[in-house]
Amino acid sequence: MTATTITVSLPAVPPAAYGIRIGAGLLEQLGALVRAVAPAPTCGIVSDTNVAPLYLAIATQALEAAGYRVIQHIVPAGEKFKNLQTVSAVLDTFLSARIERATPMIALGGGVVGDLAGFVAATAVRGIPFIQVPTTLLSAVDASVGGKVGADHAAGKNLIGAFHQPRLVLADIATFGTLPAREIRCGLAECIKHAVIRDASLLDFIADNVPAILACQPETMTSLVARNVAIKAAIVAEDPFERAVRALLNFGHTFGHAIENVLEYSGLQHGEAVALGMIAAGRLALALKRWNDKDLERMIELIAAVGLPTAMPQLDVDKTFAAMFTDKKVRGGKLRFVLPTRIGNAEIVENVPDPAVREALATLTRA
Amino acid sequence: MTATTITVSLPAVPPAAYGIRIGAGLLEQLGALVRAVAPAPTCGIVSDTNVAPLYLAIATQALEAAGYRVIQHIVPAGEKFKNLQTVSAVLDTFLSARIERATPMIALGGGVVGDLAGFVAATAVRGIPFIQVPTTLLSAVDASVGGKVGADHAAGKNLIGAFHQPRLVLADIATFGTLPAREIRCGLAECIKHAVIRDASLLDFIADNVPAILACQPETMTSLVARNVAIKAAIVAEDPFERAVRALLNFGHTFGHAIENVLEYSGLQHGEAVALGMIAAGRLALALKRWNDKDLERMIELIAAVGLPTAMPQLDVDKTFAAMFTDKKVRGGKLRFVLPTRIGNAEIVENVPDPAVREALATLTRA
Repeated sequence: MTATTITVSLPAVPPAAYGIRIGAGLLEQLGALVRAVAPAPTCGIVSDTNVAPLYLAIATQALEAAGYRVIQHIVPAGEKFKNLQTVSAVLDTFLSARIERATPMIALGGGVVGDLAGFVAATAVRGIPFIQVPTTLLSAVDASVGGKVGADHAAGKNLIGAFHQPRLVLADIATFGTLPAREIRCGLAECIKHAVIRDASLLDFIADNVPAILACQPETMTSLVARNVAIKAAIVAEDPFERAVRALLNFGHTFGHAIENVLEYSGLQHGEAVALGMIAAGRLALALKRWNDKDLERMIELIAAVGLPTAMPQLDVDKTFAAMFTDKKVRGGKLRFVLPTRIGNAEIVENVPDPAVREALATLTRA
Repeated sequence: MTATTITVSLPAVPPAAYGIRIGAGLLEQLGALVRAVAPAPTCGIVSDTNVAPLYLAIATQALEAAGYRVIQHIVPAGEKFKNLQTVSAVLDTFLSARIERATPMIALGGGVVGDLAGFVAATAVRGIPFIQVPTTLLSAVDASVGGKVGADHAAGKNLIGAFHQPRLVLADIATFGTLPAREIRCGLAECIKHAVIRDASLLDFIADNVPAILACQPETMTSLVARNVAIKAAIVAEDPFERAVRALLNFGHTFGHAIENVLEYSGLQHGEAVALGMIAAGRLALALKRWNDKDLERMIELIAAVGLPTAMPQLDVDKTFAAMFTDKKVRGGKLRFVLPTRIGNAEIVENVPDPAVREALATLTRA
């Protein structure tokens, strides 16, 4: 029988880099900064019904002043609209407007807008330049670093998506000033996560500056964002496709995603679910004798001090436990946890007994 | 004012490779061959309403014999279903079945099935292993090499998509034997394209073997597929993201896509549109004094000899001309053409005068 094999070689992709610019008043420079990394006659901008009334006009003006024809799409605000239907609507706007491969796509908003617009940028004409303009602390320190883009599915959060790295991230911390305090707190959940898994001195910095952070004091906020972005950037640079160390960033998220899933992404914000998830994971680490109670208490105290929830009496423990197995990081039906060993260090742990996991969840129902 | 920039480094991606195995009777070995590149407890397989009745049972049996739990999804056959709605339905099946990052996704069918299943593989849980089992000559020599996956949009063909390289391609040429002759002819359109842009001896090979090819004689067919795959593989290896030489593969496609677009993807098959597109491009090259009439005649004669159309009296020249500007390869509103200089070589040409383009299209309406 005649049979033959042809080998297709895929060449190496060279290293690359992008900048995350952090400061107050950067939105006014958006046009010039985008033009420097993605010159084109046209650009797309996606925002949501919360952010657009505040900043879309300024952003559009800056882009037009730099010579762009600006195509806008405003999505309804909220995680529940982070789905394939919204992606499809955004694609309709930009594909009908005849965007080309050089057309940059700008995300102006929080994590949901960034994920949606980034997924559109990843898939429109097989990939166009992507610029992130996070307008929340959470998206600045988390979603805007690392190139994860996508949408939720009925079967779970972020189950549809891609890796599409931005060309530029612009975090104008002046935009955080108009956020409800609850949004700043949610961003702090991810900052505390970074501190616990990687940088003990960041935990001190946050603890020492809670009022200045909540007041969005410019120097403190710039510093906070820069420190967190640097931590996440270092981890992502080591492991861009989440095959190893990047998984540490899931600290609090295996529990947190399950909690959000059971609540159908309403009631609790993502950062609040992560705060509860970190507490559950911390208690699991303690129960497994991998962590000490002093560090755990310090973490819980800081979570409380910034105004994040530390308990959820109405949590449905059984349903949440079941939902943990739907996370896309589950391999072979086995849960994997990120568990701290001390403030500033954490490990991936497998083969955790189910009763210990369930008990860690159950502690959240006790005040 | 405080402002700072953090640089995110993206490490190089190492070179990789995958095999395209070509021969008769490979479908029976599918399970073992998939297991060698993507071991997992579960796999997904996508086929369409034409191919599933013929080969899905054999494929599933082979996969189950190799220990896979097989999740199937059958899409309606035809380019008109290559859209985001079908992608969404396929994602629903596999995400609800709790696929994981190691779950391989197998495309069993022609180019449409490969593009759809590949896009699902690119975006489900941010990317899972992808295996192509092309059951048509066209998809074996074209779509299964190069990693282009995606779906059509109302605004144009392939406007939604990604680059997602397969782990393995298995071209069982025995499956081509059940194809209507029209499908073999459509595959030959892409083979003639490869010959014209890159390999004059392939044109001779096809011309010398038309009856054996149309009869799917195993040695001749294996040889034909291997030669074409090798040409496309070499081009893709040079330029995986279509920044330079890969654009040569669009010979006949700027015209062809516009013809398909105006016909709303019905009536003409893709290969037939490409055949017409190559003739239009060839005549454009001749009019611009870039090609000679002897080579052009040889190409047109071979297109006719394999039974592909060489004219389309009812073509709407104005509408088709307008549709050319919606192609995603258009940059800055400017058309780019791949024009042969001799059999075996072609060049990218810009700034072609509109009247010459329109006249090249108009020649197709004359018998």
